[in-house]
Amino acid sequence: MYEGVIQNLIDELGRLPGVGPKGAQRIAFHLLAADSEDVRRLAAALIEVTERVRFCKTCGNVAEAEECRICLDTRRDPSVICVVEEPKDVAAVEKIREFRGRYHVLGGAISPIDGVGPDDLRIRELMARLADGTVTMGLRVTRPASGLPVGGDLEYADEVTLGRAFEGRRLLDV
Amino acid sequence: MYEGVIQNLIDELGRLPGVGPKGAQRIAFHLLAADSEDVRRLAAALIEVTERVRFCKTCGNVAEAEECRICLDTRRDPSVICVVEEPKDVAAVEKIREFRGRYHVLGGAISPIDGVGPDDLRIRELMARLADGTVTMGLRVTRPASGLPVGGDLEYADEVTLGRAFEGRRLLDV
Repeated sequence: MYEGVIQNLIDELGRLPGVGPKGAQRIAFHLLAADSEDVRRLAAALIEVTERVRFCKTCGNVAEAEECRICLDTRRDPSVICVVEEPKDVAAVEKIREFRGRYHVLGGAISPIDGVGPDDLRIRELMARLADGTVTMGLRVTRPASGLPVGGDLEYADEVTLGRAFEGRRLLDV
Repeated sequence: MYEGVIQNLIDELGRLPGVGPKGAQRIAFHLLAADSEDVRRLAAALIEVTERVRFCKTCGNVAEAEECRICLDTRRDPSVICVVEEPKDVAAVEKIREFRGRYHVLGGAISPIDGVGPDDLRIRELMARLADGTVTMGLRVTRPASGLPVGGDLEYADEVTLGRAFEGRRLLDV
């Protein structure tokens, strides 16, 4: 449809998650009209990420050094580990500013349908971390409560979530 | 929230039209997990567009040479010019494969509220093209019909469109 390099950019953008063909076209024309410095900055940010980001050797989170910022932070409690699927889950938990322990990123979840078993995740690494005695194994394992979003309407909750919300209902001080 | 280069990429992606903060994060993590060759290809496509795309000196469409593919195509009828706002409108009209003339891209529309007047658009260039005699001035100026989308429901049409659809209604052969 377009001349080579524009169509090429539209095709590349269209491969990104959440960007359809119309969105890719819109972004491409936005970039065409944009200051070329802005486009270069975006291109440089892409290259930098491929060159500089690696995965923390301890927890598997994204990092710019051997270990991530959180593992390097000595103020964080090493005796509590929050196990999550992906690096973006670390960011989500960090955002609530409540958890002061460390993380362990599994790199996915067990999913037989996608052929992902325990050996495809960083479970061995988790066991090794637990074995060194910093975290006392078998003591306490918790998971976040399932339930309704704060301020959410009952009618929009799926049955499983509503079921969990009822199972886990808490006594009010009245 | 994230280490420097990742946050930087998320910020840059978040500036693109139609990409919110969540979308930017999703794209960034997709790129982190992607083959670094794929990311480099996207970065190269961005750079290529800034370096190689310019605007056709005749019609104002995007081009990789002095003139765009359409202006260079001698099979296209030079006596008919379709005037559009943006290069992406050229692509939209080309998609219907009906129009065999040339284009003129104004680079926007008159919009006093945004401070865009006739002098900000490529109207002078259009007049110059018309003056050379290839297109006979004053002969016929048309605009596409306004109306309902094919298969569209009446209830979803705004009043102005529905009004235009009624004004322009066509006799059926029955």
